[in-house]
Amino acid sequence: MLNYLKQNYSTKLEMRKILIIGFGKSSSYLLKYLMEKSTSENLFITVGDLNIDNAKMLIGNHKNAECLKLDVFDASSRSEAIKRTDIVVSMLPARFHIEVAKDCLAYGKNMVTASYVSKEMQALDEEARSKGLILMNEIGVDPGIDHMSAMQVLDSIRDKGGNIILFESFTGGLVAPESDTNLWNYKFTWNPRNVVTAGQGGAAKFLQEGTYKYIPYHRLFRRTEFLDIEGFGRFEAYANRDSLKYQSVYGLDNVKTLYRGTMRRVGFSRAWNIFVILGMTDDSYTIDDSENMSYRDFVNAFLPYSHTDSVELKLRHALKIDQDDIVWDKLEELDIFNPNKRVELKCATPAQILQKILMDSWTLNQDDKDMIVMYHKFGYELHGKKYQIDSNMVVLGENQTYTAMAKTVGLPVAIATLAILNKEITTPGVQIPITNEVYEPILKELQTFGISFNEKEVPYLGYNPLNN
Amino acid sequence: MLNYLKQNYSTKLEMRKILIIGFGKSSSYLLKYLMEKSTSENLFITVGDLNIDNAKMLIGNHKNAECLKLDVFDASSRSEAIKRTDIVVSMLPARFHIEVAKDCLAYGKNMVTASYVSKEMQALDEEARSKGLILMNEIGVDPGIDHMSAMQVLDSIRDKGGNIILFESFTGGLVAPESDTNLWNYKFTWNPRNVVTAGQGGAAKFLQEGTYKYIPYHRLFRRTEFLDIEGFGRFEAYANRDSLKYQSVYGLDNVKTLYRGTMRRVGFSRAWNIFVILGMTDDSYTIDDSENMSYRDFVNAFLPYSHTDSVELKLRHALKIDQDDIVWDKLEELDIFNPNKRVELKCATPAQILQKILMDSWTLNQDDKDMIVMYHKFGYELHGKKYQIDSNMVVLGENQTYTAMAKTVGLPVAIATLAILNKEITTPGVQIPITNEVYEPILKELQTFGISFNEKEVPYLGYNPLNN
Repeated sequence: MLNYLKQNYSTKLEMRKILIIGFGKSSSYLLKYLMEKSTSENLFITVGDLNIDNAKMLIGNHKNAECLKLDVFDASSRSEAIKRTDIVVSMLPARFHIEVAKDCLAYGKNMVTASYVSKEMQALDEEARSKGLILMNEIGVDPGIDHMSAMQVLDSIRDKGGNIILFESFTGGLVAPESDTNLWNYKFTWNPRNVVTAGQGGAAKFLQEGTYKYIPYHRLFRRTEFLDIEGFGRFEAYANRDSLKYQSVYGLDNVKTLYRGTMRRVGFSRAWNIFVILGMTDDSYTIDDSENMSYRDFVNAFLPYSHTDSVELKLRHALKIDQDDIVWDKLEELDIFNPNKRVELKCATPAQILQKILMDSWTLNQDDKDMIVMYHKFGYELHGKKYQIDSNMVVLGENQTYTAMAKTVGLPVAIATLAILNKEITTPGVQIPITNEVYEPILKELQTFGISFNEKEVPYLGYNPLNN
Repeated sequence: MLNYLKQNYSTKLEMRKILIIGFGKSSSYLLKYLMEKSTSENLFITVGDLNIDNAKMLIGNHKNAECLKLDVFDASSRSEAIKRTDIVVSMLPARFHIEVAKDCLAYGKNMVTASYVSKEMQALDEEARSKGLILMNEIGVDPGIDHMSAMQVLDSIRDKGGNIILFESFTGGLVAPESDTNLWNYKFTWNPRNVVTAGQGGAAKFLQEGTYKYIPYHRLFRRTEFLDIEGFGRFEAYANRDSLKYQSVYGLDNVKTLYRGTMRRVGFSRAWNIFVILGMTDDSYTIDDSENMSYRDFVNAFLPYSHTDSVELKLRHALKIDQDDIVWDKLEELDIFNPNKRVELKCATPAQILQKILMDSWTLNQDDKDMIVMYHKFGYELHGKKYQIDSNMVVLGENQTYTAMAKTVGLPVAIATLAILNKEITTPGVQIPITNEVYEPILKELQTFGISFNEKEVPYLGYNPLNN
């Protein structure tokens, strides 16, 4: 027995150790991939989190994975765990990565996250480079697969001498068609709070045919664009706040049109706009006595007082909603005029109250499946002619554990982690997956999991096809 | 000669010395009033400012007034000037009062300002009380005359046993009818920047029939109320951001309806709303290459790109403006579609650019006169019946020096200053003019200058006249 333990222990010592810090909704596929590769690749995976119930269930009695009850805010146990591993994957909420990253630099470990590079993270670039360490970020779905799939096409166009004049990119987290059962064609497949406050914080900015364009928040959901995906029908997209964020990083400083957006099913935005215009998505102040309000009171707080007219008619009048407009049915479906349902949230902002109302209707059922859609448009000039490539991806979830979101976030993270461990990805520093070294092997392997892009040449459909 | 100088000097010593720190647009009447009273009241007025040209001209060779070139940011010369005076009037921009106030407390001087009480100012209350000193604030027109005229009526209703159920108060700085020469019925009679950004910074909040109501900024100018003033026609008002600011101060904790607003001529708000909806009033980000933009480019930055459709048609379509809608003429009057007029402002926010465009059209001519309007509604119950008093005031400017704004700001400040000097106002502390001791004598004297309220009983017109 002692011999066996010793042997097991020394085997573990020889295995390559991966530490996953933080285990959330999108970690299921990450863990599954690494466990499946663990024997052939000689991996041992440790999942460290305060709440390890879910991870425990998914690990079952797999011999190459374990759970570790870890308080990530406790510096000494965190650094102790990092010291003992070969590579770290941080699946914590974005703001907590920085402490993990500092530990990684201190103990000479590579690190992978799916989150946006923060200023603090970027500041570690020089130290990481000098130590030959990789801090790979933005390698989930959005950001992540969007970077990789876009850069692969952009690079190939440039390789053949093309000059990029247009790039548009759209992503959406939606419900799969089989679970698409409400009038909004929408359910919360991700953080509801981010959905309710999406687009806030300043005017959306983008480039159209060489001109900067600005859309204030209260107009954002009225300036949508249609996108068709074969087999899945029509979608719409509204502009992200900063479409220009990756302009230089993608090498698009001379591009004429640059637009990034969020995809919904057609009609969502026009109905959502009602909440925006009424002021229900505001997260900057609290409503008086919100706790004792009914849903109907909440709606009425944004409409003028009347002792004769109904909340319904006041709303129809204020927003000029016709009797037979489908948006009305969408509002009624949410039961927002109900005088008996109570908000029951103390000192709540309008956005928090709206979120609660929406969660009544838009929470996934046990057997609901999600869907990730992505759509890129690339316009370019070659030998004096204009061309366009459209490229799109649809990923469907399998169930509530193995969601499309978990798959598209977790798999790129997992593949990158193993590739770094195997020294297939070697460029040190604070990285995002925009180089051939990173995107080629990852996109190739993602295809084997059904995550692939449907790419086709289409007639150039930029805003100015005749160039006049 | 020496004797004469000595005598003059000793006379000055015996005179009561008033120091006016900061001399701006609204100081002309203040100075005029004090100079006219200077002989009978034995006053000597010193105007201290860095720029004293205007004050010098208005003083002429008046024997009881002088100018002092004073850098208010230089603590030692500021405190030296304050030390030598009997009372201080600060007409500086609001944020600079606090240093003056601290000097006043240090050297035992009373002080008067027309600005809102800041947190820092309020924090001096205890010290002022303990030293028996008065720091009187908010004693211009709005805030100022609004406080005094409202409290006088509110107190009289309460004195006869009435129970206040409704209070609405509106003020506007406009052009006099004879100078009302554009389609907007508006010119800049005060700080243009404040006009362009008015209403921003959060939802407007008020009380209607016992219910809190909230209006987001982008709806503010579509929820107006009409107000008629005999001899001056119809006005409209949009809600101020915080109508509830003085609820407790006015003793209105149990009021059902509480609403404060800003007055414009009818139709202004509906047209202004176009700028709000397009995003042109945003002051939170800068427009790229604003310097080289034409007015037309500026408008186009908020509209989708098209290589066929005109800026005009895109705007009409986006805001659903009919061919024959008067708002269109208002836009054209401002020349906002001109491709040849250039913005010429570097790194400008949309609000700054809009301000420049408006200043082309809305700057007062040399012979233009301004107008201040104020309108209060008081609803109350007495012996089971509901009553309403409407009270309004119109003040017309005389010319560009003696404006209605200068008159309604400067005279209350001047009268209060003299009343404090004469110990007719004596309650120490950080004050605003809401007590009988202050408003009675001031309102009475303002009447002799034509600043008076037209008060009449009207049928109760609250939002719920039948109480059902």
